[in-house]
Amino acid sequence: MRGTMLYGPRDVRFEERPDPTIIEPTDAIIRISAACVCGSDLWPYRGIEPTTQPRPMGHEYCGIVEEVGSAVKNIKPRQFVVGSFFASDNTCPNCQFGYQSSCMHREGVGGAQSPVLRVPLADGTLLATSSVPSDDVIPSLLTTSDVLGTGWFAADAANVKPGSTVVVIGDGAVGLLGVLSARQMGAQRIIAMSRHESRQKLAREFGATDVVAERGDEGVAQIMDMTNGISADSVLECVGTQEAMLQAIRCTRKGGYVSYVGVPHGVELNGEGLFFAHVHLHGGPAPVRRYLPMLIDLVWNGKINPGRVFDLQLPLAQVAEGYRAMDERRAIKVLLWP
Amino acid sequence: MRGTMLYGPRDVRFEERPDPTIIEPTDAIIRISAACVCGSDLWPYRGIEPTTQPRPMGHEYCGIVEEVGSAVKNIKPRQFVVGSFFASDNTCPNCQFGYQSSCMHREGVGGAQSPVLRVPLADGTLLATSSVPSDDVIPSLLTTSDVLGTGWFAADAANVKPGSTVVVIGDGAVGLLGVLSARQMGAQRIIAMSRHESRQKLAREFGATDVVAERGDEGVAQIMDMTNGISADSVLECVGTQEAMLQAIRCTRKGGYVSYVGVPHGVELNGEGLFFAHVHLHGGPAPVRRYLPMLIDLVWNGKINPGRVFDLQLPLAQVAEGYRAMDERRAIKVLLWP
Repeated sequence: MRGTMLYGPRDVRFEERPDPTIIEPTDAIIRISAACVCGSDLWPYRGIEPTTQPRPMGHEYCGIVEEVGSAVKNIKPRQFVVGSFFASDNTCPNCQFGYQSSCMHREGVGGAQSPVLRVPLADGTLLATSSVPSDDVIPSLLTTSDVLGTGWFAADAANVKPGSTVVVIGDGAVGLLGVLSARQMGAQRIIAMSRHESRQKLAREFGATDVVAERGDEGVAQIMDMTNGISADSVLECVGTQEAMLQAIRCTRKGGYVSYVGVPHGVELNGEGLFFAHVHLHGGPAPVRRYLPMLIDLVWNGKINPGRVFDLQLPLAQVAEGYRAMDERRAIKVLLWP
Repeated sequence: MRGTMLYGPRDVRFEERPDPTIIEPTDAIIRISAACVCGSDLWPYRGIEPTTQPRPMGHEYCGIVEEVGSAVKNIKPRQFVVGSFFASDNTCPNCQFGYQSSCMHREGVGGAQSPVLRVPLADGTLLATSSVPSDDVIPSLLTTSDVLGTGWFAADAANVKPGSTVVVIGDGAVGLLGVLSARQMGAQRIIAMSRHESRQKLAREFGATDVVAERGDEGVAQIMDMTNGISADSVLECVGTQEAMLQAIRCTRKGGYVSYVGVPHGVELNGEGLFFAHVHLHGGPAPVRRYLPMLIDLVWNGKINPGRVFDLQLPLAQVAEGYRAMDERRAIKVLLWP
């Protein structure tokens, strides 16, 4: 088959690769129905994370099961499945606590920007739908594999409740789906911080009640003004930079909640500053598997349409153009059809 | 009157001071029944926090109201009262959220290691008991002013619930009362980290089920062993150093809770480390006023005896010896009788 490899900064190649096969008896092989490019793929693409050797790319996926290992009990060939970017057994104590992305036996899933994918720990990782969906619902189902689950975790970890005032920092796909998630959780006011018109528009469509274009000190001052000097109950930090994290903490009221779901790059938090900020802090790799049944249900029943984040759809063979479009912020998120 | 002043490192003087008077109409003047030395007083005492000019010391207090300003409505002369180290109006949005120590009009209370004290925002800050207590209950009532409230906040912010496995880092008075608080909240297992026999003994008396003497890597390994490799649900960081904070995070299970209640000195948290630790983090200056009614009740009804942390009682005039005893860890906490 031909699959996507990253060789170094801005060097994405779609090239001949060995067909994935069952390695462990707990594996499944799935034929990808759709894959996509993740904001986190841009860190190594931009060279901010070093690439020491060519690596297979892609970790968001859904598709049809082709084959399962001898120890797989619940997942069957011909099922349509969605899974998380971290394979998990879904039975260990960490999984039981709802932190499947810290499963004691977790394995990264890599190489989803390809026609065929090996998924470890298939029974714990994959969730099958009741039937094979039509193509029009596949983009939304694909989002449950990572980007929607991550946005949902951001809202959940920031304790969004009915009536909450919420700020979302970051207008990438995760931030936008954080807006959608906060809306589903009943937030009263959702302030999206965004400077890009197309993203502002989608944020409003997903449920943002306000948009703030300012950043840094001005952005914080704006949030203060809009909340009578109190700041927000819940702030979702969906970027992963020092600037975004500090902005998030400063936009949060005393006793409020900050979540952070993008892998932090160069973030250092001063203990004393955090102490007097008096906020709750929670984040990490989103335990997407925890939310998968509920999110698939919401999509399946047409309650939400998170697939709207894909504003560019390309044939898989044009994956390099997909990376370029996201890198240059011409696209919010790129869907790839094999 | 004679009161306690800090002039610089290890230079505590009990000297002539002006009698406090009503300055604002919301003030109260109280005659101190008992005061004490706080672990946080040791930071400037040791010169870790610089002392640029002589400052009145002491912020834990209870006593009899002598006089109130013209705007004070609920607090009356001759009442026995306890208050927090931060004066708060108890009506602003931050107070309503339960974060009175971040009251929008907060003022520090200073100079409690004296016979007479001015307390700002008396109606919001002070709580009166139903009658004047006997001397034997005063030590326990005094703890509700700060050290017990801070230990309680540590347990609360670390989400201690019935059945929880809890680790307490720091065997100072706050840590020991964190143990007591966790016990009151129904924790099943409470592991106190302590190397000092007298403190270990008191920790057990307050409800610790286990004591771990090891620190750092060895301490973390010990907690791992004791929890079948899962770590604790709730970890109370009651020290305020980098070492203690990192140890706390490493002793916490995925999705577990770390609280921190000592002003951090030199603590810097790496964002990526925190991200993959997958813990909840909450702390700050304890909103003691939130817990005051409940804690006074527990003491008044003899349910808890937190005054046991005072293992040295001195006349106020010997305050300098009190600081020395705590600095040299000869005493856990020193009570001062005016």
